[in-house]
Amino acid sequence: MAARQPSSATANAVLGLLSFGQELSGYDLKKWADHSLRFFFWSPASSQIYSELRRLESRGYVSSRVIAKDDTRGRRVYAITDEGRRALAQWLATEPADVAVLKHPTILRVWLGHLMEPETLRKVVHEHRDRLEGRLAEVHHDQRRVAADPTMAYAKLVIDWAERYYQAELRNTDRLLDEMEELGTRGGRPAGARSLPPPGGAG
Amino acid sequence: MAARQPSSATANAVLGLLSFGQELSGYDLKKWADHSLRFFFWSPASSQIYSELRRLESRGYVSSRVIAKDDTRGRRVYAITDEGRRALAQWLATEPADVAVLKHPTILRVWLGHLMEPETLRKVVHEHRDRLEGRLAEVHHDQRRVAADPTMAYAKLVIDWAERYYQAELRNTDRLLDEMEELGTRGGRPAGARSLPPPGGAG
Repeated sequence: MAARQPSSATANAVLGLLSFGQELSGYDLKKWADHSLRFFFWSPASSQIYSELRRLESRGYVSSRVIAKDDTRGRRVYAITDEGRRALAQWLATEPADVAVLKHPTILRVWLGHLMEPETLRKVVHEHRDRLEGRLAEVHHDQRRVAADPTMAYAKLVIDWAERYYQAELRNTDRLLDEMEELGTRGGRPAGARSLPPPGGAG
Repeated sequence: MAARQPSSATANAVLGLLSFGQELSGYDLKKWADHSLRFFFWSPASSQIYSELRRLESRGYVSSRVIAKDDTRGRRVYAITDEGRRALAQWLATEPADVAVLKHPTILRVWLGHLMEPETLRKVVHEHRDRLEGRLAEVHHDQRRVAADPTMAYAKLVIDWAERYYQAELRNTDRLLDEMEELGTRGGRPAGARSLPPPGGAG
């Protein structure tokens, strides 16, 4: 049991967000995760963040205090402790980075195109394309924010990487739409169209 | 309760693999999922596949039989039923495609570069690059397999998309390595290097 190391992706995401040195509430953490982390990792649910914060605090990796507000009840904010920072740094130094996983429900649908109406499938891919443009607009917004600040070195590397990633995905999707169009003009769904068979002699 | 629809990603992945019409064992399904599905969706664990097969069979979406073998005990193979095919088609037609999620542990580490030794970080990114080349080799192998078969229309769309995806990710990673190099020659980790602050006035 690696008792000194954060153990879950949520724990590492939360400690990572806190490692930049600010005190943040659960709400702040969720907002920040949605705003940046989800572009290259994934954004935990609010409930996951709150339960992870309690777990991290019980292990001494974060501390919390309540900040009074003018009118209503206070807001609990969390900070990473030295022990939490050490645990995260140790995890980063020793744990091999897992393989990147892409879960792409739109491409899954293309793969199952033999079960769908071509028109429905095209609509699904166009919706994906619209979402990509939205993400790219957000990434461009963040690029402008970090450009002015020379201390944001690693953030800049990641946000520039994300910009290239979403640009490439947009081009790739356009190409896919062209090829779907071509398939359609060659006579729509080929009879007996099927997908990649299992490797070897399965079945 | 959508009682007529497969409810989990695993259920849809398993039914999707079976929808190409072959009888497959749990082992075949795992092999096929690892071989193709994981490039754009994700590959369920063997234990998930076996428990999902039991669940799908109890709901009438798959049927199974035991095929005798020469020497040893038989092998159970599964086929999709008409009801299973209808349920999957209905799910595809009615359920909106979720947003694609990328879980990229290597980029997470770049984002947390302020907690790592630059040399360790470079090694992590190079290992990612090696894995990408391995995946691209597998994709090229599959491209050659489908190229000869005109009935594999949707498989070809997806595998060509995957080829462009991994080529783009390879270029993007090379660019990232160049930029990390540049950051290093500008004096290594800038003092106070930090990442994207939370949006708005959090903290």
